[in-house]
Amino acid sequence: MAKQPQTLAEKIISGRAGKDVYAGDITLVNVDVTAVQDGTGPLAVQQLEKMNLVKAANPERTVLFIDHAAPSPQKDLSNAHQILRTFSKKTGAQLSEAGEGVCHQRLVETYVNPGEVLIGADSHTCTSGALGAFSTGMGSTDVAVGIALGKTWFRVPETFRVNVTGKFQKGVYAKDLILHLIGLIGADGATYKALEFGGETIENMTMSERFTLANMAVEAGAKAGLFETDDKTRDYLKEHGRGDKYKEIKADKGATYERVIDIDAAKLQPTVSKPHTVDNTAVVTDIAGTKIDQVFIGTCTNGRIDDLEIAAKILDGKKRHPDTRLIIVPASKDVFLEAVQKGYIETFIKAGAIIMAPGCGPCVGVHEGALADGEACLATQNRNFQGRMGNTEGFIYLGSPATAAATAIYGVITDPRQVI
Amino acid sequence: MAKQPQTLAEKIISGRAGKDVYAGDITLVNVDVTAVQDGTGPLAVQQLEKMNLVKAANPERTVLFIDHAAPSPQKDLSNAHQILRTFSKKTGAQLSEAGEGVCHQRLVETYVNPGEVLIGADSHTCTSGALGAFSTGMGSTDVAVGIALGKTWFRVPETFRVNVTGKFQKGVYAKDLILHLIGLIGADGATYKALEFGGETIENMTMSERFTLANMAVEAGAKAGLFETDDKTRDYLKEHGRGDKYKEIKADKGATYERVIDIDAAKLQPTVSKPHTVDNTAVVTDIAGTKIDQVFIGTCTNGRIDDLEIAAKILDGKKRHPDTRLIIVPASKDVFLEAVQKGYIETFIKAGAIIMAPGCGPCVGVHEGALADGEACLATQNRNFQGRMGNTEGFIYLGSPATAAATAIYGVITDPRQVI
Repeated sequence: MAKQPQTLAEKIISGRAGKDVYAGDITLVNVDVTAVQDGTGPLAVQQLEKMNLVKAANPERTVLFIDHAAPSPQKDLSNAHQILRTFSKKTGAQLSEAGEGVCHQRLVETYVNPGEVLIGADSHTCTSGALGAFSTGMGSTDVAVGIALGKTWFRVPETFRVNVTGKFQKGVYAKDLILHLIGLIGADGATYKALEFGGETIENMTMSERFTLANMAVEAGAKAGLFETDDKTRDYLKEHGRGDKYKEIKADKGATYERVIDIDAAKLQPTVSKPHTVDNTAVVTDIAGTKIDQVFIGTCTNGRIDDLEIAAKILDGKKRHPDTRLIIVPASKDVFLEAVQKGYIETFIKAGAIIMAPGCGPCVGVHEGALADGEACLATQNRNFQGRMGNTEGFIYLGSPATAAATAIYGVITDPRQVI
Repeated sequence: MAKQPQTLAEKIISGRAGKDVYAGDITLVNVDVTAVQDGTGPLAVQQLEKMNLVKAANPERTVLFIDHAAPSPQKDLSNAHQILRTFSKKTGAQLSEAGEGVCHQRLVETYVNPGEVLIGADSHTCTSGALGAFSTGMGSTDVAVGIALGKTWFRVPETFRVNVTGKFQKGVYAKDLILHLIGLIGADGATYKALEFGGETIENMTMSERFTLANMAVEAGAKAGLFETDDKTRDYLKEHGRGDKYKEIKADKGATYERVIDIDAAKLQPTVSKPHTVDNTAVVTDIAGTKIDQVFIGTCTNGRIDDLEIAAKILDGKKRHPDTRLIIVPASKDVFLEAVQKGYIETFIKAGAIIMAPGCGPCVGVHEGALADGEACLATQNRNFQGRMGNTEGFIYLGSPATAAATAIYGVITDPRQVI
């Protein structure tokens, strides 16, 4: 009997379950890569200690990231970091130290391959889905068990297919597309679904743009954000020394989608999310002129070299507005090095930017740019919940690196089409 | 009647008192430059508000620095920063934003000239003494009054003359000299005295080396650390766009010194201060091999371009020890830019360093590298009091940039002569 056609989620999970599974099935799977960060990792380690399971099934592919509060702003967090260092020594698990970068960026650069399963104790673990991996965020205890046993279980998600056609207008980017999509379907519009991206616009995208989309899948509640693999995937893996890990993964024709969403990229405009939810979207023109005290360019969503390139081109020869701080944090050490070599860091320093070491920066609000009462920030990050940047009295707008750079120059939310 | 010969302290203070004053005299003086930072500045502003004196006598030379916790790690500090920004808007006082650098470095780069008086609400305000200015740290309220009125009062200090002759051996630097001196006279050995540095070794020093010495005068309790002006001073001012501000200032022959200390620089060795006091000094060879968890290169003491150059030469092509974090923080935006342009930042990134934005870095323990319990740090900073780096259970060793860089490579306190 012919196999039923499969979505990307079904296909990848089947590959690691060792049998064909479909939406709604509950299955055990082999886990290829496990990850924790300095917020969730110490809890995972403590759970393993309680279970008397202090080991890693695949230490080479178990990665402990110190990125959320790195270098540590205070001793309790410093002590939490020590828990990860000690666990790494005991088990052989990989340690990604303060300054090496945000977990999700380091995972795609170094660890995750098409067809694999990654579970990480961080919501934006979905980023690696752009490589055709089933990657998803789970709680510390679930990831702890995955670390120790090399297995986990999933309920195979239903899939929303997102077809994107048409060409972006100048000034419109992948970030605007994903904000638009989340505005369209809502912050819980895809809860526990897989978002499967396809269509000519996606095919034409760089890997970095795909990472931006995959990264924010969880902001619509999705379990994963998935992409078929192609030459772009192959080239990316090759550039990162893993050319041999390429594998073609395509959804089957006739696969069952719970919902199909069609988007015409040509109709999109620069988009922002307004405080305090990601789905509270608006086109930039509707809120242009809103005073912004801090601009932040970076994170797992938009801290890659092409993001910095977009910002550097806009900021070249310009200065930040005197009343607007500009914080720029490369997503990883490799990105930072390339940004130095390409002259972007010099451009940023001259523009009055504050450059911080690769990591999460002020996104999580525990260091490097907490807001004061009543201050507004425009950030390229993925989340603008009340209190996210360390202050419930702060206001966070989300936008693309171009919108962020333009806003830094004028001190108010600015349409990037004015400056490019 | 011929004027009594004067020390540098007496001469500079006389110039701004408008009459000849001598050690022990109490006098009003005109203040040229006033400075506060984000720890002390909000207190100064609150005092001015209480006194109904919200004004700056010389707003162009009143400088509010956001450097100690910058960018802010938490909302209370973010709100404190807002107090300085608001005061700047109200009075026209200069604001040095997060990322622009440590106050003392920015003051010598931009604000302070020979013969002037600077009072700053930070202990290491003595740094500018290397420019032949009488610069000293005072409490927030005293500085507040200086800001509003442009005047303050001093008891003219007695002077210790420190004569340094001989040539440093390879691997020995100004930092080793000042640590040695503090070890010699004790942390309270020069309380309220002026330390007046002279001799051929001092004459041959760069301005940056003199800043290192002046910066740490307060670690022996001194009110100021003073230097005669010369061609080096003139060139430094010229390079910083203030060539017209040069003024020759020399101590008079026959001036009265409470104590004269002679040091033969040729006999010095690489020196460190051990936990938990600056005067608890040892030569590096005596404690070589001590495990170090974090190395920190930066601060107003040793975060200038020549300090980074020394470190970059040692770290070029090398990696930090895997168990030792390496944090590098340029002292100012200008230093950072030059370090990027000269390739030092690239060297540091490749060596595994964490580069943070110009500012105080982890020196004050409120962000960017707080120690975990039991951890030891070797830092180029000026102070190693218990708890200084955010944890009373931490241990801080002070040393030169060369000692720090060598230690980062081996993970244990290392004599820099091994690697240069």
